[in-house]
Amino acid sequence: MTVTLPDVIDRTLCEDLDRADPLAGLRERFDIDDGIIYLDGNSLGRLPADTAARVARLIGTEWGRGLVRSWTDAGWMHSPRRLGGKIARVVGAAEDEVLVTDSTSIDLFKLGAAVVQARPQRSVILTEHGNFPSDLYIAESIARFFEGRVRVERVARHQLMSALDDQVAMLLLTHVDFRTGEMHDMRALSDAARSVGALSLWDLSHSAGAVPVDLHTAGADLATGCGYKYLNGGPGAPAFLFVSRRLQAELRNPIAGWLGHASPFTFEPEYRAAPGIRSWMTGSPPVIAIAALEVGIDILLEADARALGEKARGLTELFMRLADARLQRFGFEVATPREAARRGAQVSLRHADGYGVVRALIDDGVIGDFRDPDVCRFGFPPLYTRYVDVWDAAERMVTVMESGAHRRAEYAQRAEIT
Amino acid sequence: MTVTLPDVIDRTLCEDLDRADPLAGLRERFDIDDGIIYLDGNSLGRLPADTAARVARLIGTEWGRGLVRSWTDAGWMHSPRRLGGKIARVVGAAEDEVLVTDSTSIDLFKLGAAVVQARPQRSVILTEHGNFPSDLYIAESIARFFEGRVRVERVARHQLMSALDDQVAMLLLTHVDFRTGEMHDMRALSDAARSVGALSLWDLSHSAGAVPVDLHTAGADLATGCGYKYLNGGPGAPAFLFVSRRLQAELRNPIAGWLGHASPFTFEPEYRAAPGIRSWMTGSPPVIAIAALEVGIDILLEADARALGEKARGLTELFMRLADARLQRFGFEVATPREAARRGAQVSLRHADGYGVVRALIDDGVIGDFRDPDVCRFGFPPLYTRYVDVWDAAERMVTVMESGAHRRAEYAQRAEIT
Repeated sequence: MTVTLPDVIDRTLCEDLDRADPLAGLRERFDIDDGIIYLDGNSLGRLPADTAARVARLIGTEWGRGLVRSWTDAGWMHSPRRLGGKIARVVGAAEDEVLVTDSTSIDLFKLGAAVVQARPQRSVILTEHGNFPSDLYIAESIARFFEGRVRVERVARHQLMSALDDQVAMLLLTHVDFRTGEMHDMRALSDAARSVGALSLWDLSHSAGAVPVDLHTAGADLATGCGYKYLNGGPGAPAFLFVSRRLQAELRNPIAGWLGHASPFTFEPEYRAAPGIRSWMTGSPPVIAIAALEVGIDILLEADARALGEKARGLTELFMRLADARLQRFGFEVATPREAARRGAQVSLRHADGYGVVRALIDDGVIGDFRDPDVCRFGFPPLYTRYVDVWDAAERMVTVMESGAHRRAEYAQRAEIT
Repeated sequence: MTVTLPDVIDRTLCEDLDRADPLAGLRERFDIDDGIIYLDGNSLGRLPADTAARVARLIGTEWGRGLVRSWTDAGWMHSPRRLGGKIARVVGAAEDEVLVTDSTSIDLFKLGAAVVQARPQRSVILTEHGNFPSDLYIAESIARFFEGRVRVERVARHQLMSALDDQVAMLLLTHVDFRTGEMHDMRALSDAARSVGALSLWDLSHSAGAVPVDLHTAGADLATGCGYKYLNGGPGAPAFLFVSRRLQAELRNPIAGWLGHASPFTFEPEYRAAPGIRSWMTGSPPVIAIAALEVGIDILLEADARALGEKARGLTELFMRLADARLQRFGFEVATPREAARRGAQVSLRHADGYGVVRALIDDGVIGDFRDPDVCRFGFPPLYTRYVDVWDAAERMVTVMESGAHRRAEYAQRAEIT
């Protein structure tokens, strides 16, 4: 259903929208009994209801009773590819193009360094000033390995297209901006990169599971993404990486470890890469964390991708409308694009007292987060966020602002959260 | 207690040794109710009794109720350093020299590449032919980044000392050999490396938690190790890394990610390394897996290091004596050093039908493992292995060999386990 909001919005309308929501039933698949309005799933997703039992079974039965035999008998060894195959369906890739391994930052390094090694005649990693800091640091780390030959070029978002030339080895971008929620046109940028012979590497941390992502249609070359935000895999969940089939024979994992070997268990002294996506493994897979992540992915696979995208648009549109109508007078300014195709499942509001606002809201049971210098971030994961939650959050923001509680929140207590 | 075995050994003697064992009580801290004689803790350690409850609390309470607030309120953000500080006590390091992060292979890459970056005038990574394959692959991966400037030199074990010269940037060794259980003299080799201006990087995967390790006394420079073997952290547990204080200002994490930044949550566009060991973080910590690992480490910290080493010696000595007395006639040959100071908590027996022997033993409830071409590996983790287990294992090996069951075990069913 495409949500078109009427001119007048009230809580009853939100209740109606929830009743008509085709994803409404999925909220019950999460462990929610706290009355908290949780708008920080873009930082750490909610706990699925089945995660605790699945992990308990893995620990008690598979590890405790199966012991080392579970590497084969319980499928542990295959789990990074099995779960990668499921994530492939979430991001529009083929089953044998996605692998669960390491962290987003390590995966960015592996993919990015592989590109630079494979393109010795090119000298630029192109990215934008506002990319997620870790992505920038990783790009600089890669360049440091190739000092003198490769440099990182950071440009403004509107200059990306014109900065693409035949010196660019790789275009490194985050699909949805962590600060503003603005979404890149992945297809246009991937096409433009390809047209100059560069490869595109996408960080999907703020888009996979939040909005429809279709790597194949977009013609993306490489990607990675975080498991603990919209995939609901739990704190520090492993990341996933995507290597397009057309590049799997060309690119080589630059941190070649034993589990990416064609035959890890014959313990050969020389490395021979496994065929396909498995060669991107390095060390042993984080089996317990993979089990937790799989529960989150299984819920996501029950959601129709189109419904997911429409609900993300509906929730964010609703919040922006309420911000316009009820919050503008307190000094809030919407920093997220109004055009639905240009944003993720997040709305950011700028406010001079932003930190105090977020603190006061948390004290009042509405959890969002704050990003320097003045950004209040609110995530609306479509799997478990209701339209009434959006209404109630705006309502409580009005109360907080009228009471002045945001000015009393202490700056010293800034939460250290991603 | 120093175990000195008498000339005549029987099961009653083993029972007596168990009664006198100062570590005997720690076996109850593990979830063992299966009648299995588990001699594969050098591949995947046993499940501690408290792990399931600890992880359940993390998932249900800290994640489910605390949500994103638990990064600070439940100490998640600090957990890699807190647990690193505990592991430091296991390996003879200072609290601020050890960090839990990534996998052993990734940590080897980070530490090794850092050394090569810091020593631009040196051209050799020195290691031995028999080093664990992943360590060799990682060394080659590092060299590939510095193609033309750095190469990996592999020599035989007895040639290591003479191969050390002023071209060596780093001596990369595994403390206890994964195939034979042979242990290096860490102090002599670290000293020799230092005397030519090279740094030593030790893989402690088969020694930490198995035998006393004292990085400070040995003068080791860098180290890493596996969390899921003798540390009992669970399948795919994160690894730890050690950077000596005297190198922390000089060496720089070559995969600089946001959590190693001095101020990750101000999201600065330029990287500024955190002071000390935290700069070796890259991505977000695997919080669930860290909680599981911490339970294993806590048990280890209750064991006196000296008692641990003496029991490892006693168990392995007992098994070798039984092998001599009762298994030699079936064609078994002890591949592990007889001298106690030169071995870990593992005994390897060579046998032409080694694979069939291990299969048949597993069918009979004695779990060891097999390594090409002919090595039957038996690990004796001193925290939960009893002297009677050693006796019973040898007894069942005699039964298996007499019955010929090892010849019926099918080669095709080779388990894929580390």
